[in-house]
Amino acid sequence: MKCDEPVTQLHIKPTMTVNELVSAMGKAGAYNGGALYRAVNIYEQMLRDKQTTKFFGFAGAMVPAGMGGIVSDLIKDGYIDILVSTGANLTHDIIEAIGCRHFHGTAFCNDVELRHDEINRIYDVYLPNEAFEHFEEFMQTVFGKLEPGSTLSISGLMAHLGKNLKSGILHTAAKKGIPIYCPAVQDSMVGLQYWLFSQTNRVIIDAFADMPALMDTCFTTKKAGALLVGGGVPKNFILQSMLMTPNGFDYAIQLTGDRPDLGGLSGATLDEARSWGKITEAAQAVTVYGDATITLPILIAAVMERIYHD
Amino acid sequence: MKCDEPVTQLHIKPTMTVNELVSAMGKAGAYNGGALYRAVNIYEQMLRDKQTTKFFGFAGAMVPAGMGGIVSDLIKDGYIDILVSTGANLTHDIIEAIGCRHFHGTAFCNDVELRHDEINRIYDVYLPNEAFEHFEEFMQTVFGKLEPGSTLSISGLMAHLGKNLKSGILHTAAKKGIPIYCPAVQDSMVGLQYWLFSQTNRVIIDAFADMPALMDTCFTTKKAGALLVGGGVPKNFILQSMLMTPNGFDYAIQLTGDRPDLGGLSGATLDEARSWGKITEAAQAVTVYGDATITLPILIAAVMERIYHD
Amino acid sequence: MKCDEPVTQLHIKPTMTVNELVSAMGKAGAYNGGALYRAVNIYEQMLRDKQTTKFFGFAGAMVPAGMGGIVSDLIKDGYIDILVSTGANLTHDIIEAIGCRHFHGTAFCNDVELRHDEINRIYDVYLPNEAFEHFEEFMQTVFGKLEPGSTLSISGLMAHLGKNLKSGILHTAAKKGIPIYCPAVQDSMVGLQYWLFSQTNRVIIDAFADMPALMDTCFTTKKAGALLVGGGVPKNFILQSMLMTPNGFDYAIQLTGDRPDLGGLSGATLDEARSWGKITEAAQAVTVYGDATITLPILIAAVMERIYHD
Amino acid sequence: MKCDEPVTQLHIKPTMTVNELVSAMGKAGAYNGGALYRAVNIYEQMLRDKQTTKFFGFAGAMVPAGMGGIVSDLIKDGYIDILVSTGANLTHDIIEAIGCRHFHGTAFCNDVELRHDEINRIYDVYLPNEAFEHFEEFMQTVFGKLEPGSTLSISGLMAHLGKNLKSGILHTAAKKGIPIYCPAVQDSMVGLQYWLFSQTNRVIIDAFADMPALMDTCFTTKKAGALLVGGGVPKNFILQSMLMTPNGFDYAIQLTGDRPDLGGLSGATLDEARSWGKITEAAQAVTVYGDATITLPILIAAVMERIYHD
Repeated sequence: MKCDEPVTQLHIKPTMTVNELVSAMGKAGAYNGGALYRAVNIYEQMLRDKQTTKFFGFAGAMVPAGMGGIVSDLIKDGYIDILVSTGANLTHDIIEAIGCRHFHGTAFCNDVELRHDEINRIYDVYLPNEAFEHFEEFMQTVFGKLEPGSTLSISGLMAHLGKNLKSGILHTAAKKGIPIYCPAVQDSMVGLQYWLFSQTNRVIIDAFADMPALMDTCFTTKKAGALLVGGGVPKNFILQSMLMTPNGFDYAIQLTGDRPDLGGLSGATLDEARSWGKITEAAQAVTVYGDATITLPILIAAVMERIYHD
Repeated sequence: MKCDEPVTQLHIKPTMTVNELVSAMGKAGAYNGGALYRAVNIYEQMLRDKQTTKFFGFAGAMVPAGMGGIVSDLIKDGYIDILVSTGANLTHDIIEAIGCRHFHGTAFCNDVELRHDEINRIYDVYLPNEAFEHFEEFMQTVFGKLEPGSTLSISGLMAHLGKNLKSGILHTAAKKGIPIYCPAVQDSMVGLQYWLFSQTNRVIIDAFADMPALMDTCFTTKKAGALLVGGGVPKNFILQSMLMTPNGFDYAIQLTGDRPDLGGLSGATLDEARSWGKITEAAQAVTVYGDATITLPILIAAVMERIYHD
Repeated sequence: MKCDEPVTQLHIKPTMTVNELVSAMGKAGAYNGGALYRAVNIYEQMLRDKQTTKFFGFAGAMVPAGMGGIVSDLIKDGYIDILVSTGANLTHDIIEAIGCRHFHGTAFCNDVELRHDEINRIYDVYLPNEAFEHFEEFMQTVFGKLEPGSTLSISGLMAHLGKNLKSGILHTAAKKGIPIYCPAVQDSMVGLQYWLFSQTNRVIIDAFADMPALMDTCFTTKKAGALLVGGGVPKNFILQSMLMTPNGFDYAIQLTGDRPDLGGLSGATLDEARSWGKITEAAQAVTVYGDATITLPILIAAVMERIYHD
Repeated sequence: MKCDEPVTQLHIKPTMTVNELVSAMGKAGAYNGGALYRAVNIYEQMLRDKQTTKFFGFAGAMVPAGMGGIVSDLIKDGYIDILVSTGANLTHDIIEAIGCRHFHGTAFCNDVELRHDEINRIYDVYLPNEAFEHFEEFMQTVFGKLEPGSTLSISGLMAHLGKNLKSGILHTAAKKGIPIYCPAVQDSMVGLQYWLFSQTNRVIIDAFADMPALMDTCFTTKKAGALLVGGGVPKNFILQSMLMTPNGFDYAIQLTGDRPDLGGLSGATLDEARSWGKITEAAQAVTVYGDATITLPILIAAVMERIYHD
């Protein structure tokens, strides 16, 4: 064991850019502050590496928290090749894209009163029920444009939605031709709307229809990298995608608030993924524990500052 | 605000049954120990309530941790009407059912060495790669029995697997006719095996084929109750299932190690679900924070002791 | 790496004793359920080892949660040689011992209303302000019996309090001659009462007067063991006590809900303590993550069942 | 319940200052990202309020993580009136001030090997044993300058140490005449060194000698504000200090990684403190959950940017 890189006490200057602050946090270098600095380094390298297919896992209620803007920008700027997300995030992306809004609220409130006021709560974010009325109208209209009797993949359904929107993640991905995988699409308001639609219409969503294209990408890419916001299905679906190939992920960054000792994948260390071969033995990988509404903006702001300055 | 139920200091007797200890924890009554006591009360009442459809959400790597035995017993004894789980738990259930084993390991190890030794790690559980060879053989054989050209629901696929097994969760559920919903089945080794199979065979898994039966149950049941182990897709899929009906869950218990302030559903309080109408305003509901490898055995042991003593 | 001890799926029997359940959790053997089983084994061995000085660290608001009864029983039965706790736990121990009570409340309430109702909240425990009036009267009376002009150690002050009480931790420890160390006694209602007393009286509490006796014990004991409930000052004070000696702790068990990656001692693994020499290289040590209002009663009930059955 | 402040999706610009990013996080406004923005607002207001006595609680292993530089700068710039910290942080502050260093390491290592290499680990920070040899020499020399037979307060001892150093927190506080309270000073390497010294010398450290001056400040200040990094003794000691007065804290910010449902004070919400009257009913207060090696630098950088821009 060696001691060669000393901890440097952090000093704040009156005006620091995000990357300047993250660099100072890197010289301090400990705990999750140090991990965040390493995440910035790895993500910068991953984004600059033209041989790397860039996966982005997007779990947790991130769009209601305003993190969707970061993701649509990353897609627009070419920094995401494959997006895997939850039905919930895509539901809220649609809600914003059709002009409804989420609102600042409080987690310390009476939920029965909220129910009476027709407000749905996501921790300290409020979403009026009314939004779901507009959502239903939009979804049924757009689902109605599907070819009767056809069979679709989930990413095909997502692209269809995106083509009928004018902003947000689904829209930007559809415009750029970036696939959005959402393995558990049934598990969301999108899914419930589809169930409503399917009561009187017949379009089959083939649960496995996305696998061949994904597997083709995994078998042909030279390198693979993943930024994982949260855990859940997006994390597992991304990491397992390389499992059938002789390779694994070369870059992996996870931003999560979960803990490893409960055994769940969402909190599992990326080292655990090495034992499975999901990430390569030599992969550059780091987990930053904390709330992604803090760590994601810092990560992206610092990396964009570096890339822009070139 | 009233102060009428005093905290009773807990005294251990030389030999206590689990329910005796939980009752003493209830008289102490604070923090998660108090919550666990309330969970026992609610779950007992829910299991005794013949008008209630009993949902069980099973997320997290619980089968590798030996918690699968509890679930198959609950199904066998008629205490689960609808099971919603992850592809991972069902994968590990199959692995055990075909005679392979998980092993006690340690989380503090070198994952690259594990990789060389062909051992996959789940926190402190080890699973030799060899198990996946047997798994592949079994899965391809059983998938091969599917009717070519047919279309299946995910629960249909799960029942098909269960009928070809002789123990475990899938087997017991198939035998008892209990549906297993696994919305993100693609996101698991079961899913990867299905992708392999589907390269040379054509059986469509219709992602939404399970919704009508589930919705029928939700619209016709007098009451609904849910025990949620972990969060993830199982929690959301269960809670949203009542959302389209005029009712909500009357009983809800969650055992989770996540925290609410990160906004994710897995750690969200059940009160938050009241604002959405997922659980009723008057629902009996409690969240117990902690590792389900501790809280689940205690909960079930205490409730079974009570029910058996009648 | 070896795979020899298989995970055994857990099956609940209608009536199980706590130790029977913990043994089944040990055969399942994963995550914190497995750790709790190992904690029971280590604590049993530690309590049976007559050469071992038994430390008990008691942090967190455990007395308001009814966990004080366990500690006073352990002292009474000879299972604690040295207790290190917080001023808060001892304050609440006194409150109960003078006949005041804590009450079951809820964490989801309006704290300003509680303030108006003169109720102090500790998560979901309520304590009426009135208790502090009785507390003040008791404390001033008992402090008034101290020899004017004398100098006392903190453990001496605790013993003085214990001699003036008829139940609880302080009382039992005083009766059995077990020292209670409370390094940050100023940081509590006990401390504030002492400040009130010291405005008109002069008895010096020598902050370091407890060190010689503690160090003598540490230098002369053959072996040392520690059960640490929570972290904080009690954990550090106990673990550092062996640091000056050529030895370290031979047994160490920590029950904590904190996490290691934040760098704080309360969540630090006991392995970290090996690098410092606080625990020996060969020490039997385990950390169980979770709420001690669950893990402590189980641990003690299982160990007492084993010891009693001999 | 009202919905008037909409969530604004966050967009990263190529180069953002820390305050610009925090402001965008505030417009997103959810979870801990929203809380961090509110913390910046409250701390800015608190620092600008000339009627407010500014407390700073500094718990957790923050100096080994490079966070000490922030604290000494805040003292130097007049933004801390009273510092309450742990013996550990002050020990590591002295170690750095006498020219020894902490080093970047890894948490995933063999602690027995570290022990053999004479390296002490604090999560992923390494501290060579050698540092403690220099520390012992320094401490014994400086303690040796104390007046034999005298009685000292803990803050007096801290000031004595600070006067004998040339950089760091203790030095800066001594130079500026800012008291450092360290209620559990025995619980640290400073304390163990003092025990060594006291074996052959007689200087009494009066545990309660700091209370009168602290209480005087609390009774005479017009307003009080606290920034609490971590919990532990510093949080409780600060919050209880206003308890004896008719007032409470008007501003309170806590940065913590702990959780409230375990009942411990370190994770308790600041609302809980309202029920006790530790903070006023109308106090501006916010808790940001996360690793302070991330949240503290952002908080201070954003506030300093605002104050500097005036």
